[in-house]
Amino acid sequence: MKYLSILGSTGSIGTQTLDIVRQFPNEFKIVGLTSNKNSDLLLKQIKEFKPKAVAIMDKSKVDDLLNFSSCQVYSGIDGLNKIASLQECDTVVNSLVGSVGIEPTHNAAKNKKNIALANKEALVAAGSVIMEEIKKNNVNLMPIDSEHSAIFQCLNGENIKEVEKITITCSGGPFRNFSKDQLEKAAVQDALNHPTWSMGNKITIDSATLMNKGFEVIEAHWLYNIPYEKIKIVIHPQSIIHSLVEFHDKSVIAQLGLPDMKIPIQYSLSYPKRFPSSSKSLNLAEIKNLEFKEPDFEKFPCLKYAYEAGTAGGTLPAVMNAANEVAVRAFLDSNIRFLDIPILIRRMMDEHKLIKNPALSEILEADRKAKDETKRIIEEETTIKN
Amino acid sequence: MKYLSILGSTGSIGTQTLDIVRQFPNEFKIVGLTSNKNSDLLLKQIKEFKPKAVAIMDKSKVDDLLNFSSCQVYSGIDGLNKIASLQECDTVVNSLVGSVGIEPTHNAAKNKKNIALANKEALVAAGSVIMEEIKKNNVNLMPIDSEHSAIFQCLNGENIKEVEKITITCSGGPFRNFSKDQLEKAAVQDALNHPTWSMGNKITIDSATLMNKGFEVIEAHWLYNIPYEKIKIVIHPQSIIHSLVEFHDKSVIAQLGLPDMKIPIQYSLSYPKRFPSSSKSLNLAEIKNLEFKEPDFEKFPCLKYAYEAGTAGGTLPAVMNAANEVAVRAFLDSNIRFLDIPILIRRMMDEHKLIKNPALSEILEADRKAKDETKRIIEEETTIKN
Repeated sequence: MKYLSILGSTGSIGTQTLDIVRQFPNEFKIVGLTSNKNSDLLLKQIKEFKPKAVAIMDKSKVDDLLNFSSCQVYSGIDGLNKIASLQECDTVVNSLVGSVGIEPTHNAAKNKKNIALANKEALVAAGSVIMEEIKKNNVNLMPIDSEHSAIFQCLNGENIKEVEKITITCSGGPFRNFSKDQLEKAAVQDALNHPTWSMGNKITIDSATLMNKGFEVIEAHWLYNIPYEKIKIVIHPQSIIHSLVEFHDKSVIAQLGLPDMKIPIQYSLSYPKRFPSSSKSLNLAEIKNLEFKEPDFEKFPCLKYAYEAGTAGGTLPAVMNAANEVAVRAFLDSNIRFLDIPILIRRMMDEHKLIKNPALSEILEADRKAKDETKRIIEEETTIKN
Repeated sequence: MKYLSILGSTGSIGTQTLDIVRQFPNEFKIVGLTSNKNSDLLLKQIKEFKPKAVAIMDKSKVDDLLNFSSCQVYSGIDGLNKIASLQECDTVVNSLVGSVGIEPTHNAAKNKKNIALANKEALVAAGSVIMEEIKKNNVNLMPIDSEHSAIFQCLNGENIKEVEKITITCSGGPFRNFSKDQLEKAAVQDALNHPTWSMGNKITIDSATLMNKGFEVIEAHWLYNIPYEKIKIVIHPQSIIHSLVEFHDKSVIAQLGLPDMKIPIQYSLSYPKRFPSSSKSLNLAEIKNLEFKEPDFEKFPCLKYAYEAGTAGGTLPAVMNAANEVAVRAFLDSNIRFLDIPILIRRMMDEHKLIKNPALSEILEADRKAKDETKRIIEEETTIKN
C-alpha cells in the first residue's frame, strides 16, 4: 500500500491519478490533496477519498472548504509545502503547473518522500538543488511525463554508462506545419488544439511553441544525468513512440503506446511492478504509419533557448521558465501574440546575470524577478520588442 | 574472457561472429570451429584463431584440414557434437542451418555450455527436449536472431508474468507485394533478393515463404515460455523495429536498429554488458517512415502451419521443419516450384502420426523420416500434388 499526497489534484494529471487510485483501492490510499482554486472539485475529492489534510493555493477559497470538510485545511505555498511533507505520506504526486512546484518538490525530498513528478518546471528551474536533495535523502524520483517515463522504462535493467544517445519524440504540436506568417497570426484556440495529447492549457501552449520539448530536454538531463549533447529531439506526429535510448552497441530501446497519460501515471505509482490497465492496446497495423523528421530550431526558437539555458545552467533555466510562464499566461489572456512568447523569453535570458551554483533561495529569487520584469514589459510596452 | 566454439563458422553468422571476436581480443578466445564443407575458409580461420579443435561435416574434406593444421580435426555429426562439448569452451555459438543443429545444441546444454543460438530450427524441431536440458543444467540460452534478441532486450529488468503480448516484426520478404499468380512463377533469384537483410540462402528462402517467421513464433514460445495466442506478427517492411513486447499495463517496449546482424550477435556474446560497436547509428529522421500491416495468412500459408504445428507440439514441428528443409533445398536446386514448398509441408504434416511427449531420439527419427519421404515425393512425382 502506498500513501499518496497529490499536489494539483483537480488538474488534468491530478484527476487521472485519482482515477487510478479508484481502480486500485488496495494499492493506494490518499492522505493529502491540493488545488489551485477549484474548491468545488476539491471538496468532492475530499468526500470521496477522505484525506488527512488538503491545501488550496488561493487563500480566498479556504472558507469554502473549512465549512464542509472534516480534514485539516491549509492554504497558499505553505499549505502546499505542508501537504508535500505530511507524516502519513510516503509518495508525493506533483502535478502542479509552473515554478510554484519548486518548493514543494524540494520539501518532499527533504522529508524523504518518494516523488512522482509531472511538474517539469520544478526540475527545469531548480534541477540542481532538487536532485541534490533527492540523492541526499535517497528517495525515488519517478517521471510522469510520457517521454521521461519512456526513457525510464528503456533504461530498465540497463547500465546508464552504456547510453550513447537519448531521443525525445515530439508531436510537433498544433503548429508543426504552420509557416512563419501563420505563426504571426496564431490564435489561442489554434494553439490549444493539440493533435495527439489532451492536456492542461499551459502545457498545450508550451507544446505549440515547443518550449515544452525544450523543458523535457532539461528534465531528461537532470533525471538521467546525461549531458545535453547526448539528448536529441525527433518530430514524430503520431506520438506513438514516446522516446528512445540508443546504447553504444547501436541497439535502440524505445517505449511505445497510444497517447494516454494514464499509462505513465500508473507506471510511476506501480513501479517496480506493472498493474493491469484497461487502457487501449497499441495496434501498429491499425496505425499503419509512423513518421519522423528533424525539428526546426529556427521556426521554434524556444528549443534553442532551452539547450542554451540548460547548458549554461545556474539560474538561467529558472529565468527562461519564469519568462515563459508569464508570457504563456498573457497569450492565453490574449494580451500578447503567439510570437511574443519567444521574444520575451529571449529578452529575459539576455538581461539575466547568471548565478553559477545557486542556492534554492537564489533560484526562487531569480524566478520571482524574471516574472515581475516580464509582467512589467507586457503591461508597459504596446508592441513587444526584440 | 569467454571461450567460444562456433558451430558453422564459415557461414554468414559464423563469419560475422569472428569479425566481433577480432574486434575484442581481450574478451573472446576461439577454442572450436566447424564448417559444413568449406575447408578452404575453415583452414584460414584455423590459422588466424588457433582453435583447440575443429570439425567438418563433410567427411570427404577431412584430409584438406589434417594436412595443413596442427589442431585436432573431427568430422560428421560426431565432430559437431565434440566441438559443442569441448572442455575448454564455455559458450557455444550455434550458427548451423537446419535440424543438424539439434544434437549439438542438446549436447552443449548437457555439458553445461552457455549457448548463443542462431540455429532456430533446433528449437523449432526439438524445443521441448532442448529447453529441458537448458533448465536442468542451468545454462544461458541467448538468442542471436534479431527478433528474439529484440524480445530479450525488451524483457530486460521486466517480469515475464506481466507480458500481455509479443509482436514479432516481419519485413514481409521479397514477395510481400506479389500476387498469387506471381508467386506461381517466382524464381530462385527473385526469392534470394531479400529487401532488408543480407543472410544465407536457406533462411532467405524461408523469409520468402514466411516459414522463417513461423519458425520465429515457435522459437519465441520456447525461449520465453509464452503461449502461442500471445505471440503476434506484424509486417514492417523497413525492418527497423525488430520486435515489441506489450505489458499488461499497455506499455510497449521495442528494440530498434538498422538491419545489421552484428548488433544482435555481439549482444548475445557481450550480455549482460553491451560493448561499443562501429555499426551505423539509427537515425529515424533520415528513415522518415515506418510502415506496418497485418500478415496475409492465406497468401503465405507456412505462417498458419507454424502456429498449428507449434500449438499441437510433440513431433509435429520437427516434421514441418524437415519437410521445409528438403523442399527449400529442392527449390534452390530448381527441382520444384516456389508454391510446392507449402504443399510439401502440408502433406508431411497431414501424414504424420504425432508423438505427444517425444524423447530426443523420437524427434530425430521423425526428422529423418519426414526428410526421406519429402525427398521421395520430389523425386517420384513430376507434379507435386496437394
